[in-house]
Amino acid sequence: MKFQYGRILQDRLDGEHGLPRRRLDELARRFGEVQAEVRQRRAGGEYGFYGLAAQDRTIRQISAFAEGVGQAYDHVLVLGIGGSALGTRALLSALRAPAWNELDDEGREFFPRLTVLDNVDPTSVAAALRRIDPRRVLVNVVSKSGGTAETLAQYLVVRRWLDDALGGAASRHLVFTTDPVKGALRALATAEGIATLEVPPDVGGRFSVLSPVGLLPAALVGIDIEALVEGAARAVARAEDDDLLQNPAALFAALHWAADTQVGARLHVLMPYSDRLRDLAEWFRQLWAESLGKRVDRGGNVVHAGPTPVASVGATDQHSQVQLFIEGPFDKLITFLTVADPGEDVSIPPAEGFADEIACLGGRTLGDLLHAEYEATAAALARMGRMNATLALPDLGPAAIGELVMFFQLATGYAGCWYGVNPFDQPGVELGKRLTFGALGRTGYEAPEASAATDADIA
Amino acid sequence: MKFQYGRILQDRLDGEHGLPRRRLDELARRFGEVQAEVRQRRAGGEYGFYGLAAQDRTIRQISAFAEGVGQAYDHVLVLGIGGSALGTRALLSALRAPAWNELDDEGREFFPRLTVLDNVDPTSVAAALRRIDPRRVLVNVVSKSGGTAETLAQYLVVRRWLDDALGGAASRHLVFTTDPVKGALRALATAEGIATLEVPPDVGGRFSVLSPVGLLPAALVGIDIEALVEGAARAVARAEDDDLLQNPAALFAALHWAADTQVGARLHVLMPYSDRLRDLAEWFRQLWAESLGKRVDRGGNVVHAGPTPVASVGATDQHSQVQLFIEGPFDKLITFLTVADPGEDVSIPPAEGFADEIACLGGRTLGDLLHAEYEATAAALARMGRMNATLALPDLGPAAIGELVMFFQLATGYAGCWYGVNPFDQPGVELGKRLTFGALGRTGYEAPEASAATDADIA
Repeated sequence: MKFQYGRILQDRLDGEHGLPRRRLDELARRFGEVQAEVRQRRAGGEYGFYGLAAQDRTIRQISAFAEGVGQAYDHVLVLGIGGSALGTRALLSALRAPAWNELDDEGREFFPRLTVLDNVDPTSVAAALRRIDPRRVLVNVVSKSGGTAETLAQYLVVRRWLDDALGGAASRHLVFTTDPVKGALRALATAEGIATLEVPPDVGGRFSVLSPVGLLPAALVGIDIEALVEGAARAVARAEDDDLLQNPAALFAALHWAADTQVGARLHVLMPYSDRLRDLAEWFRQLWAESLGKRVDRGGNVVHAGPTPVASVGATDQHSQVQLFIEGPFDKLITFLTVADPGEDVSIPPAEGFADEIACLGGRTLGDLLHAEYEATAAALARMGRMNATLALPDLGPAAIGELVMFFQLATGYAGCWYGVNPFDQPGVELGKRLTFGALGRTGYEAPEASAATDADIA
Repeated sequence: MKFQYGRILQDRLDGEHGLPRRRLDELARRFGEVQAEVRQRRAGGEYGFYGLAAQDRTIRQISAFAEGVGQAYDHVLVLGIGGSALGTRALLSALRAPAWNELDDEGREFFPRLTVLDNVDPTSVAAALRRIDPRRVLVNVVSKSGGTAETLAQYLVVRRWLDDALGGAASRHLVFTTDPVKGALRALATAEGIATLEVPPDVGGRFSVLSPVGLLPAALVGIDIEALVEGAARAVARAEDDDLLQNPAALFAALHWAADTQVGARLHVLMPYSDRLRDLAEWFRQLWAESLGKRVDRGGNVVHAGPTPVASVGATDQHSQVQLFIEGPFDKLITFLTVADPGEDVSIPPAEGFADEIACLGGRTLGDLLHAEYEATAAALARMGRMNATLALPDLGPAAIGELVMFFQLATGYAGCWYGVNPFDQPGVELGKRLTFGALGRTGYEAPEASAATDADIA
């Protein structure tokens, strides 16, 4: 994977925009401190996700499960939300055939379908339970803490559905991915003899896709999880470099921080030119937003930090977002994701009888067109003074995706240092949780104020 | 539908944040000018989308097509991009059962599956053509201009696939939705006797979902398009009100403009608490971004205007974006979409043996939990000084969705006036189109500069 960052710099953009190259030199000089902070925090156990690049035992355990009991099911139903859902969906979209669940058994190479329920919307849950056969489902309940309200509400509903259909056999259709010791799911698993996998205690939910959280569902649908983790190890190895210019994850973080805080690029757009990476961009949104969006810095000073990540897809969003990117405010840094070899290509037949603007497509491939559109969009943005960069992937194999996933996690860890915030907590969601209990009438919890106490301010 | 906007105002938020109420009074006073401008431009033919609220003839024509020839197919394949794709997908998600294409014939009430190909990613196109049976497909090619490069490239590929499978019968599997007179698709339809529907010339692509662009696919999958249009008419009727406080679409526009330009809320988040409205939020992103993101105003002054729309989904994104919304910069106005009656609900069984934070869910419904989470999140945001508003829908019926769609289109038309820009053009994408031709080697077109001419600036 290569990170092409030239078009973030002022001397590669038209006009006065972009980051002056001397800023990059400053970042490179300051990187020693950042790398030292990361090393110190790793030693202190804070950056546990680095360990996901080396976990032979876990891979063997998951592979054994997937090749054994996993074969008995033709649908995997994941109950989880946020970090327990987004990564799994990203792996499925990137590494398995498009519209996976619409394929027949042969199209899926006899691997199961996979549904991720990541909301408590009753219409989604009811519909999923109508279309899935409880006799042929494996339900993977994923909650690091074991106490996520949405996930446990889903579990209670799904458990009754399994019990109604299967009676005492229901527990054999369940596997919990949760903390090794703590939480409600762990206690339940122990009491009922339900199979479990462990989320390492030092790995936060949004950094957990390469733990059993994402690896079990991935293995069940036939993704090579060993190659995923090998790719992740490649990213970690590159992040050991103390030269910022040779350490792509650190450089991505430094440039994004500088673009945000020094030249006003508060919006960080990730725009893969690949349908199969759309969900990976959604996963990145959580990672970047929840890790960096913080009221206070590590010193307790009120900073209200946090760039807003935006997910787009090329060429599709050239017909939706690019007008704004190219003509709107100078408040965005756009990172394209390209794939040199997407695995297959499609020839465009000759366009006889069409005007030249269409005829020129004949004889090319859809891949040619997609790549031409990326090159054109990136160049047009640069000409209009818009900062952009490219992460160039060699292919859509599991090693490349594992490397990319770990790259973004490493970048997030570095960005926490540049922003001076703790990238591993999420204190801002606690108030909402307490008010939810209040809204549900739980004793001792205050109810939220209604948005419209009277008819005033309603149209 | 009700628009609850109190929490945009300073006196309803904690702290110094939000829009002072006197600003609302100013907006209300200035609204006369805006309404007059809209009326004048409507009379001049610029706001053609208002006409989509009254189109009996079109509805009859589409219904006849859907009930006749439409019944012969079990898959509808839409080729289109941007405004020719996003609206159709939004209607399908909102108004048909979740995971529609995964359902069997009975689950779909014997209506066809629907696939929207909105990219030239070869992996998506190849996979779609592998899983769809050409003998049972109706291909709806949608391009207002008839000359969209991506859509015509798709058409050339799909046409060869049809020809190979069906020979001379291929044209009976095609229907074009395009300009009544102009463009390559119109010429081709005339030459080959292919069925067509017309996009009204005065309706732009991103305002066209309630034209045959969205109505034909909607009708084919069994959506009541008459009710959709009736809902749209309701929104238009409300927009005739000259009192800003009684005209929700105009008020939505005015408050968003003021929040952006007067108190720094450059990010406009749309966050439905409903999985079924996720794609509608994506459709809104195009409408808002492409309409308002402009380099120059109507007077030709360089303004680089344009709020950035962001799509989120509750409760899911409470575990992804809300940490940033609640603790990050004060640069967002968040509009929730709620649904009073989503059509079905699911009881949460008693949570015996769980700690009280889970036990309190037992006996409630998933709908209760979802609504409690919305109320809690909105109240928590207000307590932290974060502007938010709510669009409250009565249900997920076609009239409510038609009203909502037209509400956003009307709001966009009004916002164009407040921002002083033309909401109906997209001049910024022309450079990219020319450079794409250059990248494809078309004679007379300059190729785009490479992002990495040398090894410099690559990590």
